[in-house]
Amino acid sequence: MRRSIATVSLSGMLRDKLQAIAAARFDGVEIFENDLLQFSGKPQDVKAMAADLGLAIDMFQPFRDFDGSTPAQVARSLDRVERKFDLMDALGTDLLLVCSSVQPDALGDTDRLAEQFAQLAEAAGRRGKRIAYEALAWGSQVKLFSQVWDVVRKVNHPALGMCLDSFHTLSLRDDPAPIRQIPGDRIFYVQLADAPWVNTDVLTHSRHYRCFPGQGEFDVTGMMRAILDAGYTGTISLEIFNDEFRSAPARANAVDAMRSLLWLEEQVGLSRAAAAPSAAPAPQVSLFSPPPAPKLAGWSFIEFSVDTAAAARLAELLLSLGFSRIGRHRSKDVELYGLGDVRIVLNRETESFSRHYFERHGTSACATALTTANPQAAIVRAEALGCTRVTGQIGQGELDIPAVQAPDGSLLYFCPPANADGHHAFEADFVMDADAVAALAAHAPTATARVDHLVQAVPAGQIEPWVLFQRAVLGLTPQRSVVLHDPFGVLRSREIESSDKAIRTSLIVSERDNTAISRSVARLGGGGVQQVAIEVQDLIASMKALRAQGAPVLPVPDNYFDDLDAKYALDPAFLQGLREAGVFYERDAQGGEYLHAYAAPFDDRFEFEFIERRGGYDLYGSTNSPFRLAALAEWRAAQQAG
Amino acid sequence: MRRSIATVSLSGMLRDKLQAIAAARFDGVEIFENDLLQFSGKPQDVKAMAADLGLAIDMFQPFRDFDGSTPAQVARSLDRVERKFDLMDALGTDLLLVCSSVQPDALGDTDRLAEQFAQLAEAAGRRGKRIAYEALAWGSQVKLFSQVWDVVRKVNHPALGMCLDSFHTLSLRDDPAPIRQIPGDRIFYVQLADAPWVNTDVLTHSRHYRCFPGQGEFDVTGMMRAILDAGYTGTISLEIFNDEFRSAPARANAVDAMRSLLWLEEQVGLSRAAAAPSAAPAPQVSLFSPPPAPKLAGWSFIEFSVDTAAAARLAELLLSLGFSRIGRHRSKDVELYGLGDVRIVLNRETESFSRHYFERHGTSACATALTTANPQAAIVRAEALGCTRVTGQIGQGELDIPAVQAPDGSLLYFCPPANADGHHAFEADFVMDADAVAALAAHAPTATARVDHLVQAVPAGQIEPWVLFQRAVLGLTPQRSVVLHDPFGVLRSREIESSDKAIRTSLIVSERDNTAISRSVARLGGGGVQQVAIEVQDLIASMKALRAQGAPVLPVPDNYFDDLDAKYALDPAFLQGLREAGVFYERDAQGGEYLHAYAAPFDDRFEFEFIERRGGYDLYGSTNSPFRLAALAEWRAAQQAG
Repeated sequence: MRRSIATVSLSGMLRDKLQAIAAARFDGVEIFENDLLQFSGKPQDVKAMAADLGLAIDMFQPFRDFDGSTPAQVARSLDRVERKFDLMDALGTDLLLVCSSVQPDALGDTDRLAEQFAQLAEAAGRRGKRIAYEALAWGSQVKLFSQVWDVVRKVNHPALGMCLDSFHTLSLRDDPAPIRQIPGDRIFYVQLADAPWVNTDVLTHSRHYRCFPGQGEFDVTGMMRAILDAGYTGTISLEIFNDEFRSAPARANAVDAMRSLLWLEEQVGLSRAAAAPSAAPAPQVSLFSPPPAPKLAGWSFIEFSVDTAAAARLAELLLSLGFSRIGRHRSKDVELYGLGDVRIVLNRETESFSRHYFERHGTSACATALTTANPQAAIVRAEALGCTRVTGQIGQGELDIPAVQAPDGSLLYFCPPANADGHHAFEADFVMDADAVAALAAHAPTATARVDHLVQAVPAGQIEPWVLFQRAVLGLTPQRSVVLHDPFGVLRSREIESSDKAIRTSLIVSERDNTAISRSVARLGGGGVQQVAIEVQDLIASMKALRAQGAPVLPVPDNYFDDLDAKYALDPAFLQGLREAGVFYERDAQGGEYLHAYAAPFDDRFEFEFIERRGGYDLYGSTNSPFRLAALAEWRAAQQAG
Repeated sequence: MRRSIATVSLSGMLRDKLQAIAAARFDGVEIFENDLLQFSGKPQDVKAMAADLGLAIDMFQPFRDFDGSTPAQVARSLDRVERKFDLMDALGTDLLLVCSSVQPDALGDTDRLAEQFAQLAEAAGRRGKRIAYEALAWGSQVKLFSQVWDVVRKVNHPALGMCLDSFHTLSLRDDPAPIRQIPGDRIFYVQLADAPWVNTDVLTHSRHYRCFPGQGEFDVTGMMRAILDAGYTGTISLEIFNDEFRSAPARANAVDAMRSLLWLEEQVGLSRAAAAPSAAPAPQVSLFSPPPAPKLAGWSFIEFSVDTAAAARLAELLLSLGFSRIGRHRSKDVELYGLGDVRIVLNRETESFSRHYFERHGTSACATALTTANPQAAIVRAEALGCTRVTGQIGQGELDIPAVQAPDGSLLYFCPPANADGHHAFEADFVMDADAVAALAAHAPTATARVDHLVQAVPAGQIEPWVLFQRAVLGLTPQRSVVLHDPFGVLRSREIESSDKAIRTSLIVSERDNTAISRSVARLGGGGVQQVAIEVQDLIASMKALRAQGAPVLPVPDNYFDDLDAKYALDPAFLQGLREAGVFYERDAQGGEYLHAYAAPFDDRFEFEFIERRGGYDLYGSTNSPFRLAALAEWRAAQQAG
């Protein structure tokens, strides 16, 4: 399909926006009037600039409040529109978006509207222009595409068609299915936006919360299917009003924009394929179709960039938490630690991506590795969706583990699954300590330890890019958005998982500057893996053992356990176990239980969580987050005092 | 009145919160349960800590979901509450807040509720405790204070009373007047919060948008009057859930909290005094009553901190904009510039507050001076409301112009009005150039020039403190909150004015990091005066003259004027005048007109705006802000390109 984007979707000045849009390989652009009014050159200069960049100017928008309750008003509107046609001549575009009126005296009667729009269509036709009429969800009278279609149908003029916008239709929870009955050539333009469901009025919703398809909660795919079923073969365009996007770097955001359209096309194709073949006419446009999203089995390893000193401290922490050193890389200054099935790589290699990452971000997870049966297909998909492939140095006889850059610049590897002997495939690159590996499996309490989930801290404004990356590239599904209370400010987390829960992740952002996460993001040049949550079989026993060995674990205040008892009326012995082990507890409405405990954080950058899920508990223990975050703050204060 | 605050209203850990609350001279504190659960010591330690600080623990809160649909549920609740009574014994408080249930099976029948609350009251009485029952605005069944009163009245037990909360009542637009009929001693506690009106659900409204009385739009004064009319003599307490406050420095925020209560008491007193004396019983409590808010006549001067180099550059800018150098300070290295009635002070004095300000903030307005008939009364009021008075060095025979610190640490002077000869009173401290002064009045186009308004840029989170400062200390009234679009992110502005419009100000905050304002705030260690708007009589002529003289004025794109014509159908000659003069234009619904133009900004920190109001136009030209901000961005880009 032809792909376009409205200039209002990106931040900055018009020239920068057009360059970003062209670099992301869009076919065209909608010029938003304010961008033109702010432009210091002539409209002809915009035309030339777009042409130089290989961008068509698909539409000029918006023209507001056309219809009127008096002939004088209509005459005035027709006069106004002639001046816009002049402007469009200079811009070199023939399509004008006219949105439904928000004036108190706007017309609701489609017969009267048709009379006035017939005049508009005539005027446009005379000038070689076309009108795309759109229903604003907050229009005074015309709010629905069905009303617009009524007018367009009655006028029946080649210069008058519809503009459909997924936000306006879906935000009102209007049914897009009847779009299928509209002749596709009467739809002149299609604008696409997604949004989270927010409890506010539809105008506020539209002006501040729109996002790219795949980042929100609307069924944009379903609406797009109806539009294609109608026989639409034109352009799909993004029109996003979003406070974050208005401030986001235009280049990166334009790449996300393209990724969202490509993903949407794939979803529409999959959705059509899943329906009965007879249900709809064959598609008249070709849809983007990359290799399917990889089936992910878990994490093969998590790699931390360290220098020698940091490596020693992190190794000490790992050993104190029960990890063993189980291997060293065949050709690099890289060590491998294991606990059950969990693998942590410490990369001390100088002159490497890792060291470069360390210099910029301190001791951080510079790479994570997902396990999938077909790494190559995963990479091809990721590249097709605009990711950058990264190739490292490979020693003789070593595996070529493919990787792409994640949105924060860290690496995401795709690793094949375990070998026939049950060992991680990537371990072939390591000289393994066979005794240590055997001991991992023999140590009953942690023999089955595995990575349950990762929490990723992201800078402000980075939740949406990450959601799209994980959804489109990795096929994960966004879940709840949760508010967490740090003693020094509000955090928000977004949970994203694979359908079989083999991969669970959570993105966390601090919306204010005073929280520990904000300070860490500011000090260390960005976010990164903030928690590695390890599932064990008997958490209380595990934590008691760690405490007995003097491992650095996060203390939990006694008052917390007193309240736990009042809240859940727990078995006294069980409660005593939680208290002695320093384990947080949450119970869901179905009786599922989550036990979790924390090691002390490393450099205020990341921490290890140990968890146990019981009875089908499926969440992340967020009701305990105020207590965990306060305990962390106490721990920090004690460190500083001590 | 006794004044209290809930620990949840402040950021940080419990110890820091209590210290901040005590420092702001509160009488007591409500312990919010989560603060206790996060506390690593024992409840007895909290009791001791509060006692050491001279704070009473007025209440423990909240106890949720007491009532139940089955006897087993009630028994469980009664068991739970006994444990809270244990905790309250340790804390040394006798009052427990019980809020209405949010459970799906909560009771709505007040007879059944009364049965269960009678049991609760009995239990509390046995333990020497009292219950304050509160209606949550989002309770499943009990949402209104009238329902709670129904239950309390029916139970009729000395251990059961009401907790009133202005947020719950006013957010539902419920009428507080019937509170007058409730015996005052059945009201056990009063919680106060204000809020802006936000289009969202009441729970989101409560959890994220509450603010201190005077910062929002609720009629907290009216509700408080009804409560006092009922004969209430107990504590007033602040309970604020606000995303900004959760991240704000606790000390400063506690001072604001106290200021808001003091201001509220004054407003209640004024409101009672304004009503017919017979309308209500005499107050049974004493209300805070400072000197009345000053009547302000305008700005006497605006003072910029400069060093020698900056002074030269700023003087050059002022002269190019038509200002004249009209005086020098009798004893300090300070110069005075004038344009009509506008006075700009350049302070080069070393070893001064101004130089210290310059070192921290660059060339900035380190002081503003308001004109008022009784400066001394204004200072007494400001000090009574928690402001810090600042005394500077005064030369022999010079005026003692009193000042207080504004929320950003700059100085706010109060100056007496003009002398009998029509000259600014403060000019007595200057050796004035009589010829230059006479020339100001003789230059017709700017003879009447005056400061129309100041725009103050503030860091994130500082709108609310400023609003309270200007409302409480200066008696200004907050007006609209407006969204402005910078090319690199969203700004919000809040307009605040005196009732006679002699003082108009606007606070502006950038909610994202990439805007010019954000960068300036970050680079220069805070906000400050960002615009000085000067009213002139014939703006088009003035700007044409400035342009002809080569003054550094902000260019306005031609495309802007083309659109202006399409929008307003202006007289061609008038439009041509706007275009040639580079003047922005806005027309309000009543036909009032605003003409405005800008000088190039100084160090990206502040700028001079020239304006003309016609036909009763009363706003700030914000519809033009996208074009003005884009023009600024273009100007900056051109500067950088050289």
